[in-house]
Amino acid sequence: MAAQPISILITGANRGLGLEMVKQMLETSQPVKKLFACCRDPDGPKAEALRTLAKKYPNVISIIHLDASDPSSIKKLAQQVGSVVGTEGLNLLINNAGILHRDSLQTTTTENMQNTFTTNVVGPTNITKEFLPLLRAAVKASGKPGMSCRKAAVINISALLGSFQSIQYTYDVLPAISYRISKAGMNMLTLCASEELKKDDILFAALHPGWVRTDMGGEGADIDAQESVKGMVGVIASLTERDTGTFLDYKGKPIAW
Amino acid sequence: MAAQPISILITGANRGLGLEMVKQMLETSQPVKKLFACCRDPDGPKAEALRTLAKKYPNVISIIHLDASDPSSIKKLAQQVGSVVGTEGLNLLINNAGILHRDSLQTTTTENMQNTFTTNVVGPTNITKEFLPLLRAAVKASGKPGMSCRKAAVINISALLGSFQSIQYTYDVLPAISYRISKAGMNMLTLCASEELKKDDILFAALHPGWVRTDMGGEGADIDAQESVKGMVGVIASLTERDTGTFLDYKGKPIAW
Ligand SMILES: NC(=O)c1ccc[n+]([C@@H]2O[C@H](COP(=O)([O-])OP(=O)(O)OC[C@H]3O[C@@H](n4cnc5c(N)ncnc54)[C@H](OP(=O)(O)O)[C@@H]3O)[C@@H](O)[C@H]2O)c1
Ligand SMILES: NC(=O)c1ccc[n+]([C@@H]2O[C@H](COP(=O)([O-])OP(=O)(O)OC[C@H]3O[C@@H](n4cnc5c(N)ncnc54)[C@H](OP(=O)(O)O)[C@@H]3O)[C@@H](O)[C@H]2O)c1
Repeated sequence: MAAQPISILITGANRGLGLEMVKQMLETSQPVKKLFACCRDPDGPKAEALRTLAKKYPNVISIIHLDASDPSSIKKLAQQVGSVVGTEGLNLLINNAGILHRDSLQTTTTENMQNTFTTNVVGPTNITKEFLPLLRAAVKASGKPGMSCRKAAVINISALLGSFQSIQYTYDVLPAISYRISKAGMNMLTLCASEELKKDDILFAALHPGWVRTDMGGEGADIDAQESVKGMVGVIASLTERDTGTFLDYKGKPIAW
Repeated sequence: MAAQPISILITGANRGLGLEMVKQMLETSQPVKKLFACCRDPDGPKAEALRTLAKKYPNVISIIHLDASDPSSIKKLAQQVGSVVGTEGLNLLINNAGILHRDSLQTTTTENMQNTFTTNVVGPTNITKEFLPLLRAAVKASGKPGMSCRKAAVINISALLGSFQSIQYTYDVLPAISYRISKAGMNMLTLCASEELKKDDILFAALHPGWVRTDMGGEGADIDAQESVKGMVGVIASLTERDTGTFLDYKGKPIAW
């Protein structure tokens, strides 16, 4: 029996890892019914590559406005998506949008701390919360037991820098204290959500994409977005109820919190 | 040789664990030169017990205004303390002030997330940052090698609820998702700061006070403030350079991040 086509939402979809995810999600063998590609400025110059891509899949990709730091924008997005997917719900939500400041304890500011937390943690919290009804609808529509990303799942794009175990060998290279605190917070959000929504069959996992050559990762990074996303798409497709509440890298290897 | 008297600052010192710490810090055999007991409303009814205590030690205790969520109040505090301690610096900073909301992913709000993070993480970050010059002064004045809370240390009062390992056996009882995220963030702050300031001989540790009968802990909690603080004061006194960057409970037992 062929797999049911699913609905996917990706935040920060106009560049970097988000844009590559949109691309690869449509190129895999897994059929996609609807892909909501969210960005802050759908009509602006920074979304040009996404608009070009969307033209190739006009019936699948919808580019929708989202500022993850603005709760009213999140509410509006959930309404728009709900009106498209209806009782079939949303199967896969990928919280990918994120920001990074290169600060240390000695150089950070209240603004760095607040805006990093707002975008990287409060955003994903509010987005997850607003989309719970649509994720629940997808569970109901699936009718199958167990958990998977083709049924109902939230994937949070976290970072190795948010791992406590990584501090001793990464802090000297890049302190990024406000970012590390935010990704530890995002990891805690992931684990708490997985615990709270286990009984609803909604899967939650945090993924580390590797150190990737994007605007955020810089030119000196280890791998390109294609390799990172290829890995993550494979990992996402493989997840089951055994994996809810875990933190994995793009090769599927568990990372210690 | 008798121990040198030290200077201590405690936030949230008007009630609960903070008030009990002020009390016990003055009753131990370790001599205290100056104790800065900080609270939001030094002249208000909620600081009455602290004022009564301060009258018993007029040369030691100074009650000073601090709102941990207000950067300008933190800056002012650091100036005031600096003008008292001078080149001897501040030896021990205890970030104790904290708030808790009883929310879950499904009930939390942007406001809960933001104000818990502001008080429990941004506050301690800014306080630590502003007091670094006085902690460095204390290191210089000490002239001794190694680390200790009688030389220069920052103790962050964290919580078991912020431990990733605790989720599976505590989440059902008390989700408190905004609080857990904030304490995971405070733990990350502690570990990052310990790494960044190792070479300056400033000690950082996160402590879990136990589940304590205070306004926050509630009447059904395991232990009273006296027992918790007795344990923590002992643990604090015992810390050395081996303990920087650790997370310990009030009995000195390590807790997994
Ligand atoms: N690259 C790496 O090496 C690496 C490593 C570990 C983790 N990560 C994580 O992977 C994710 C993607 O990173 P990336 O490398 O692709 O970064 P990137 O190239 O800097 O792209 C970041 C994306 O997030 C969007 N964004 C930022 N703030 C937003 C907001 N408030 N609302 C909506 N969208 C927002 C950006 O949109 P605009 O174009 O509008 O700014 C952009 O689309 C992030 O969560 C990052 O922390 C990356
Ligand atoms: N009790 C427990 O079981 C338990 C367990 C684990 C961890 N902890 C941690 O232990 C610490 C002390 O808790 P507690 O039980 O003593 O709590 P509490 O009885 O509720 O007292 C909290 C204290 O923090 C102060 N505070 C709150 N927000 C502040 C702000 N913005 N600026 C300055 N001060 C502020 C309060 O001052 P006001 O009087 O002005 O409100 C009060 O002095 C907290 O960090 C808490 O998370 C407690």
